[in-house]
Amino acid sequence: MTQNIDTKFRREADRGSHDYELACEVLDAGKVCHVGFTMDGQPYVIPMAYARLDGQILLHGSVASRVMKTLASGVPCCVTVTHFDGLVYARSTFNSSMNYRSTMVFGSAREITDPDEKRASIQSLVDHLMPGRRADLRKSTPQELSATTLVSLPIETFSTKCRTGPPSDKKTDLDAQVWAGVVPLELVKGEPIDAPDILPGVERPEYL
Amino acid sequence: MTQNIDTKFRREADRGSHDYELACEVLDAGKVCHVGFTMDGQPYVIPMAYARLDGQILLHGSVASRVMKTLASGVPCCVTVTHFDGLVYARSTFNSSMNYRSTMVFGSAREITDPDEKRASIQSLVDHLMPGRRADLRKSTPQELSATTLVSLPIETFSTKCRTGPPSDKKTDLDAQVWAGVVPLELVKGEPIDAPDILPGVERPEYL
Repeated sequence: MTQNIDTKFRREADRGSHDYELACEVLDAGKVCHVGFTMDGQPYVIPMAYARLDGQILLHGSVASRVMKTLASGVPCCVTVTHFDGLVYARSTFNSSMNYRSTMVFGSAREITDPDEKRASIQSLVDHLMPGRRADLRKSTPQELSATTLVSLPIETFSTKCRTGPPSDKKTDLDAQVWAGVVPLELVKGEPIDAPDILPGVERPEYL
Repeated sequence: MTQNIDTKFRREADRGSHDYELACEVLDAGKVCHVGFTMDGQPYVIPMAYARLDGQILLHGSVASRVMKTLASGVPCCVTVTHFDGLVYARSTFNSSMNYRSTMVFGSAREITDPDEKRASIQSLVDHLMPGRRADLRKSTPQELSATTLVSLPIETFSTKCRTGPPSDKKTDLDAQVWAGVVPLELVKGEPIDAPDILPGVERPEYL
């Protein structure tokens, strides 16, 4: 299947890359991906938490979830991770743009059924999504494990597109008396909010 | 077509909504969506800038872009907008979660070919993506307009899922001596970066 997927760059080829290290960098910098698949001819795009573990993307969800059942069945899917890095204010509407990094991974997921692999994959997810947290949490129960579906998508067919840097204006626009530049954007952590039923004496951990 | 799209909520139905106002709120709070469609049996998920104009989502791109050609041809697509609002630290791995707002819009886009509608749609895009900017920019040239494809997706079949608030732990986990709560996340603007070739005397506009 994968050899038929068209990941050729036609437009703005300078922004595109099939480099594996770059793809891993983009994937490792995010926590939420968008998963695309088709059901009965209709495309769906679902936001999901993910982690990269070596050459695979791990996704999880409830065993009852229709999305997880569909992914676990091995249908073709596309997992996209995007970082929206900034607004690019050019001197024209046409050259106005965005800075971003985005990696798409194409393929078919397999369900992780081996209990040891499943437990290790959940640990990878927690370690990626909430670094430092795992040591503070009790072990998952067998009931919790069997209520969770995990799937793995190999990072084999993928492509990355990035735009960075200042606006690229037409020469004829450069004498316009208008500001041009970039407004950077970043997903920033706010002040942690304690749960209302937190036990007295429990302090906020370092890893927050 | 649309009546066959399954937007029923099976899991965590309390998080789901078909409310139009809520969908508009989620859409209006973002600038980048993920567009899903299928080509030769392979799903693609592409990040794109967008704007909502009344009951439609506007997307744009180069006339040469394969993605725009595919969307303009009216294939079934799914546009998803997601705000990743926070990490939810529960007392167990199983109940750890994320706060988010996400709206999916399903349907088929139509190409905007009428010149007046096309110009107005580009204005809507600029006004949404870079509020206040339009007055500072020269008018788009006929060449620029004809180099741009615009499509409109009606907001008719859609669904929104949100999670907000503190973790929901099992009663039996509430006596764990571990911090629980939410780490909020927000996409924040940084200090603007002037283009290197900015004209002397041009100041940063208010709308940044």
